[in-house]
Amino acid sequence: MINNGITAQQAAENLLNADNILLLCHKNPDGDTLGSAGGLMFALKKLGKMCAICCNDAIPQKYDFLGLEVFDGQFIPDYIVAVDVADTRLLGDKLAEYADNIDLCIDHHPSNTEYAKMVCCDGALPAAAQLVLQVVQAMGVELDENIANCLYTGLMTDTGCFKYSATTAATHIAASQLLEAGAWHDFIANRFFMSKNRKTIALEKHALNTLEYYFEDRCAVVELPLEVLRAVGAQPSDVEGIAAMPRTIEGVDVGITIRQLSESAYKVSIRTNEKANANEIAAGLGGGGHTKAAGCEVMGSMESVKNAILREVETALCR
Amino acid sequence: MINNGITAQQAAENLLNADNILLLCHKNPDGDTLGSAGGLMFALKKLGKMCAICCNDAIPQKYDFLGLEVFDGQFIPDYIVAVDVADTRLLGDKLAEYADNIDLCIDHHPSNTEYAKMVCCDGALPAAAQLVLQVVQAMGVELDENIANCLYTGLMTDTGCFKYSATTAATHIAASQLLEAGAWHDFIANRFFMSKNRKTIALEKHALNTLEYYFEDRCAVVELPLEVLRAVGAQPSDVEGIAAMPRTIEGVDVGITIRQLSESAYKVSIRTNEKANANEIAAGLGGGGHTKAAGCEVMGSMESVKNAILREVETALCR
Repeated sequence: MINNGITAQQAAENLLNADNILLLCHKNPDGDTLGSAGGLMFALKKLGKMCAICCNDAIPQKYDFLGLEVFDGQFIPDYIVAVDVADTRLLGDKLAEYADNIDLCIDHHPSNTEYAKMVCCDGALPAAAQLVLQVVQAMGVELDENIANCLYTGLMTDTGCFKYSATTAATHIAASQLLEAGAWHDFIANRFFMSKNRKTIALEKHALNTLEYYFEDRCAVVELPLEVLRAVGAQPSDVEGIAAMPRTIEGVDVGITIRQLSESAYKVSIRTNEKANANEIAAGLGGGGHTKAAGCEVMGSMESVKNAILREVETALCR
Repeated sequence: MINNGITAQQAAENLLNADNILLLCHKNPDGDTLGSAGGLMFALKKLGKMCAICCNDAIPQKYDFLGLEVFDGQFIPDYIVAVDVADTRLLGDKLAEYADNIDLCIDHHPSNTEYAKMVCCDGALPAAAQLVLQVVQAMGVELDENIANCLYTGLMTDTGCFKYSATTAATHIAASQLLEAGAWHDFIANRFFMSKNRKTIALEKHALNTLEYYFEDRCAVVELPLEVLRAVGAQPSDVEGIAAMPRTIEGVDVGITIRQLSESAYKVSIRTNEKANANEIAAGLGGGGHTKAAGCEVMGSMESVKNAILREVETALCR
C-alpha cells in the first residue's frame, strides 16, 4: 500500500486518541464519500466517541437506509476528518470554515492536494471505503451490519459494481469481509444499480430519439435541448447517466452528448474508449478533462455546436 | 458446502484419473457454461490430458478471447463431463447422444435432475464457475490467466456483476483469487456489462416511446410490435434485455413487455418485485414461471392483450 503521508494504521492511532469528531464529506455527495464517512462514524461510535457527519448538501434520500447521523451542533468538534475529499474546494461553501483546520484526510484520489495535517491517501484504490475499512480494522473495531452497509455502498458505487479497472483482488477481499459482516448487498445493488428514476427514463427516451451515428458509426451523438430538460425537470445528476450512454454502444469509439444550458450555450460531454482521446477533443473547443471523459462549453445553436464538435471528433479519429 | 452426490474434492479425484475428456455445455450457451467448461479445459490440459468442449450451438463471437477449444473428433472421448447443465434436455439435439452416458456433472442449479453417474452440485452457489474453481484447486492445478479469464467470465455473468442475492463472501474470495491469477477483469466487465449492440439500442428506443404507466405508476408497460422487431432484425436475446427494463423504473412493482410473435399472437413478459407475484399474474392468462419473472402467450391484438394483462396486474396489486 502506497500512502502519501500516514498509513491506515497511523490514521487509526490518531482517531483512537481523538474525540468529538466531525466527519466531512465532499459536496454533491456520492456513495463513496457518504459510505466512507458512515462506516467511520459507526466504528467511532462503537468506541464510545462523539461523532457526526457534515456535508454541504442535503443527503439524498436513497442513502436513508445507512442511518447517517448529521452534525447539528450536538458537540463541539475537537478533531476534523475529511473523507473522499481530494481538495478543500470540494467541501462547498457551508464547510469552507473547516478548510484550514482539517486534522486528518482519508482519500483515494491521486490528485489529493494534501490540505490536511495528516493525509492517509492511497491513489491506487478504487474507493475511499476500501481504505476506511483498513482504518476501522486497524482501530480494532469489529465490523457490524451498519459499518458494512456503509462501506459496501462506497465500494460498490465507486467501482461500478467491481467493473472499473482499479478494482483489484484486495477490493474483492474487502467486499467479502463486508458481506461476512452482514452488508445488505443485494438491497444495495438493487438500490444503486438496478433501478432508474422516471426522469432518467424520460431523458433516455429523448436522447435515443435524437441518436445519430457518424464516421462509419464510430461516433454516436445525442442531444438534450432545453425544452426537454425543462419538461422532464431534470437535475444535473440525471443528465450524467445519459452522457455515459452513447459510448456504451458496440463499435462506438466516441460518445457525444450535447446539452443545452441556455438560449445559446451548450455543454458538450465527450466519452471515449482507448481509440480516441476525450481530453484532446475537448481541448479543440477550449475544454478539457481526462483521457476517456472530458467536456467543453460552446456558444451557438444545437446545429452549429454539433458541427463544431464533429469536426474535432473527425480529427481525433484520423490521428 | 452442500453437494448433492460428490464433493468438489471427489470430482477432482475422478478427473485426475480420467483422460480424453469431453466437456458438455448447455444449449444457447452463456458465460457460466462456457466459462466453467473453459476453466476446466485449461486446467485439464495443464495436467497433460486430452480435452475439448462440445456445445449444441456455435460459441458466440464475444467469447472468442477465452480461447476455448471445440471438440472436432481429435480424440475418442473416454470421460464425459457436463458443466452448468441442470437437465440433459438442455444439452440440445446435437449432444443428445451423450445424455445417458455422462460420467460427471458439475452444476449449481437446485433443479439439477441428477442425470450423471456422479453429481457435484451446489445449489447455493450463484455460478457453476465458483464450484469449478474449487474442483480446479482440488486437482492441484495452479491458476493462470486462461483459467482465470474463463472462470471470472462465468462468475461475473451469472452474478450480474456480483449484484444478485446468491452472491456471498465466498464468491468475492473466488473473484479475488481469479484477479490475483491475472483475469482480465475490466476487459471482461466492459465486454459483458458496459456495451450494448445497436439492435438492443434500437429496441430500447422503440420500447421507451411506447412506455405507459398504470395503477398509480406501479405498473409500466412497453410494446414491441412485429414491424419494429423485423425492422431492427432483433434476435430473442436482444429482446430479453428489454423485458427487464420496465421493472427497473423507480416505484414500478410490475413491469410488462408485450412482444408480437405473429399476426395475432403475443408474448407477455412479466417482471415483478416483492410486492407482486409474476407467476400468479401469468397464470391468470394460462402462463407461468417464477415469483419475479414469468410469461404467457396470448392471442388477440396489441390492445386486447394489453387490456387482458392489465386486468391481471390490477388483481395482483390489490391482493
